[in-house]
Amino acid sequence: MPRPSPAETRERLLRAAAAEIRLHGYAGASLSSIAARLGMTKGSLAYHFPSKRDVALALFTSMEHTHGELRTGVADDGLRGIRALLTLLARTTSRGRTDPVFTAGTSLIVMSGALPFEVPRVFDDLITAYAASLDEARIDGEIASDTDVGQAAEDILASMIGSWIVRARTPDRPDTPPLRLAHAVLHSIGVADSEDVLRDLTDRGLAPWLEAGEHLRAQTTP
Amino acid sequence: MPRPSPAETRERLLRAAAAEIRLHGYAGASLSSIAARLGMTKGSLAYHFPSKRDVALALFTSMEHTHGELRTGVADDGLRGIRALLTLLARTTSRGRTDPVFTAGTSLIVMSGALPFEVPRVFDDLITAYAASLDEARIDGEIASDTDVGQAAEDILASMIGSWIVRARTPDRPDTPPLRLAHAVLHSIGVADSEDVLRDLTDRGLAPWLEAGEHLRAQTTP
Repeated sequence: MPRPSPAETRERLLRAAAAEIRLHGYAGASLSSIAARLGMTKGSLAYHFPSKRDVALALFTSMEHTHGELRTGVADDGLRGIRALLTLLARTTSRGRTDPVFTAGTSLIVMSGALPFEVPRVFDDLITAYAASLDEARIDGEIASDTDVGQAAEDILASMIGSWIVRARTPDRPDTPPLRLAHAVLHSIGVADSEDVLRDLTDRGLAPWLEAGEHLRAQTTP
Repeated sequence: MPRPSPAETRERLLRAAAAEIRLHGYAGASLSSIAARLGMTKGSLAYHFPSKRDVALALFTSMEHTHGELRTGVADDGLRGIRALLTLLARTTSRGRTDPVFTAGTSLIVMSGALPFEVPRVFDDLITAYAASLDEARIDGEIASDTDVGQAAEDILASMIGSWIVRARTPDRPDTPPLRLAHAVLHSIGVADSEDVLRDLTDRGLAPWLEAGEHLRAQTTP
């Protein structure tokens, strides 16, 4: 069996940390329990993560890296404006459902009021990225010309975070169309057909997980 | 000095618990540190709160009681439909800015993935309350007749929670008009003038804290 690469080892450690934080919260997670989950001694784990804070920072770094990859992917696909924004939102949601490390990093940002250190400005960066696409949309006439793209971008992010948390905390409610609240924001700035745009875009490969009836809760419970 | 009533004592204990949870999270808060904050022994505190779980349950009960009071107040004012909903949302936001016990209960619901017990169905109850007002709005012709009021109510709640979290995590961003994301939801179901409705309603006494420039972050950091 080939020796795992450093990147593979790191990913394995981050997955164990994500699972531990998901079960016990950041305060309740311990390096010992993460090591036990991996069949490692705490000493071997300490070679990679000397402290719990290092675990959190590694989760943040990984999450920021994923956000960067998702943005690059949308640009590489030649998308701009509303199409770029909706594709980015759809891929981010998809990633949140399938990647526990990404989800753990996001949960830590949401719950970071209690963390004993400064968290990175991920939300500011996301708002900036969404605002850039909305600015293209403004230039291209896809949204009202007097739209405050910064405020609209903040609303888009709030729509993603709010929907995620409310759905995680109301497991018995019926499933809802993907990005419904984000569509409401886009409607309010003049995009009448954002559902149709998303439907067209999802023909490129996102359709399966955007189907109604799919359950995101297990993955997204903060 | 008159002896404090049991209700006053309980409120004092809940405020200390809220401050402790705000600083250290639920997992990091301890009965000893809450007692120390009150200048009490842990034994005297245990008379009121035998366990930390009892503290959390008392915060939930208090929060549910506050939500009930807010709903009753709106009904007593003879409001219905969109006016009832906007007034309830505005008063809930106001309460969240001034009542740390209410805010701590809400934070615990948002972050409850890591709590070692079931949390009450507060979000389901709020969605039901919002849906009732939206149903009146539908009957009165204030919103589109084919609106799915349950889904719209879920979006309204997600708009409140998402905006609260994003603003708490982006302290340097400019202030925004009150309930902006909630207005987007209302626009999407046919209420073109919800900002005007809110502005009229706030003439009744909510205006001061709805002014732009007011900072909600100190109070709402989860």
